[in-house]
Amino acid sequence: MGELVLIGLGLYNENDLTLRGIREAKSADEVFAEFYTSLMPGLALSNLESVIGRKIMVLSRKDLEEDCGEKILAIAKNGKAALLIPGDPLVATTHVELCIRAVKEGIKTRIVHNASIISAIAGICGLQNYKFGRSVSIPFPHGEILSETPYEVIKQNQQFGLHTLCFLDINAEEKRYMSINEGLAILSKIELNRGEKVITADTLAVGIARAGCPDEIVKADFVNKLSSLNFGQPPHCLVFPGKLHFMEAEALIVLCNAPESIMELTLQ
Amino acid sequence: MGELVLIGLGLYNENDLTLRGIREAKSADEVFAEFYTSLMPGLALSNLESVIGRKIMVLSRKDLEEDCGEKILAIAKNGKAALLIPGDPLVATTHVELCIRAVKEGIKTRIVHNASIISAIAGICGLQNYKFGRSVSIPFPHGEILSETPYEVIKQNQQFGLHTLCFLDINAEEKRYMSINEGLAILSKIELNRGEKVITADTLAVGIARAGCPDEIVKADFVNKLSSLNFGQPPHCLVFPGKLHFMEAEALIVLCNAPESIMELTLQ
Repeated sequence: MGELVLIGLGLYNENDLTLRGIREAKSADEVFAEFYTSLMPGLALSNLESVIGRKIMVLSRKDLEEDCGEKILAIAKNGKAALLIPGDPLVATTHVELCIRAVKEGIKTRIVHNASIISAIAGICGLQNYKFGRSVSIPFPHGEILSETPYEVIKQNQQFGLHTLCFLDINAEEKRYMSINEGLAILSKIELNRGEKVITADTLAVGIARAGCPDEIVKADFVNKLSSLNFGQPPHCLVFPGKLHFMEAEALIVLCNAPESIMELTLQ
Repeated sequence: MGELVLIGLGLYNENDLTLRGIREAKSADEVFAEFYTSLMPGLALSNLESVIGRKIMVLSRKDLEEDCGEKILAIAKNGKAALLIPGDPLVATTHVELCIRAVKEGIKTRIVHNASIISAIAGICGLQNYKFGRSVSIPFPHGEILSETPYEVIKQNQQFGLHTLCFLDINAEEKRYMSINEGLAILSKIELNRGEKVITADTLAVGIARAGCPDEIVKADFVNKLSSLNFGQPPHCLVFPGKLHFMEAEALIVLCNAPESIMELTLQ
């Protein structure tokens, strides 16, 4: 019986691999990787190959989506295929489809988990994990059309006092990565249309650049201040805090360099 | 200037350490660990010590909470202290307090991220990550008193069609770990009081035992069916799916062995 092992790569570079991930990749008949669902800023294919001691076949979005991972399934049917994936595998829906197809073809699938921005972000900001509501992506505009979903989700979470993690769109083929400034500009444009005071100049937000990397930048401030900062290279993401506990406000001040005045927000 | 490095251990055993985590632990002046915030079922202290090639000082809840991590801070003030933590560090609030205190004392703090149940769970169930609302813990009852917070959170998420991850209480000192059956029994008792049809015999749920371990069990079914299953050793957790997309229902059937009849839920 064949096997498919999805191996998470974590957030930064080849040193984020786990011992289990390395062992599973070494013993595979063929090792594949995809790098289009997230950007790992420190990753070089050659370093990854030297850590696992194997050649890696890099797959495109087309290979995995239009062609339904055929190349992988051909190996996994009678042998062992490993697929290396940035972050924690299966956060991207694409790979769920691949697993479903594999299991239906009688292939045993396994996951080797790793760090993901989803669990990392609460710790990086010092915000309580169970106070995060649903997360949302801010997509690149299609011409003049802006998706209002991120605005809706932030608003909904705010109503319940919950924090919101916003992923910023990436288009790996075109090497386009949305910056914190672009994300804030899009939300401010929607605010201008809607006028519901969800994202104003005085809204508190946290900008996180290169989470989990040695040159990570985390800065909490009001939207008008954050909008003028340069966070440098991608990937970026944004957090909109909901109602703050005293300790969360202290964490934002001490760990994320927020202005001391945010302490007043805990009293409201 | 001193350093404090918080190193995530992942979900199962010493092989879930990352290369970066091992390197950081090796170069520390003193290596500490805590094992009371989560249970890693395959972890033996001696194996962990042999992987990092260092003696480890295990800290209790008292050391970290009542004594505010004094032992660690004493090392971190002028040297490098490493603290090994199950899962991804800082998901537990305790450690946020430690970081705040360290930074205030002029100690540089860093996090080495790792896998966490929080990001792993979506992939394990095949549910879409951005459709999870806030998560919640089901605490052990205090005598006759049941916290209704989990019921409230599941209800709130259901209203928006969102999934809910429920952590089940652990008391590491007493080696008490809430099982899926106990968690469901508590929710059913609250349902009996409240009668709002949030958790009925026909509510779909997913029971996950030993997530990320070689003997992981994942089973989706209606509450009356799940309640009678034995999921074995801890740790356990529960997911209550919200509105299902077609592909999510298919994932629950193929990856979590849900009854085919759940496909009807996608049509409602």
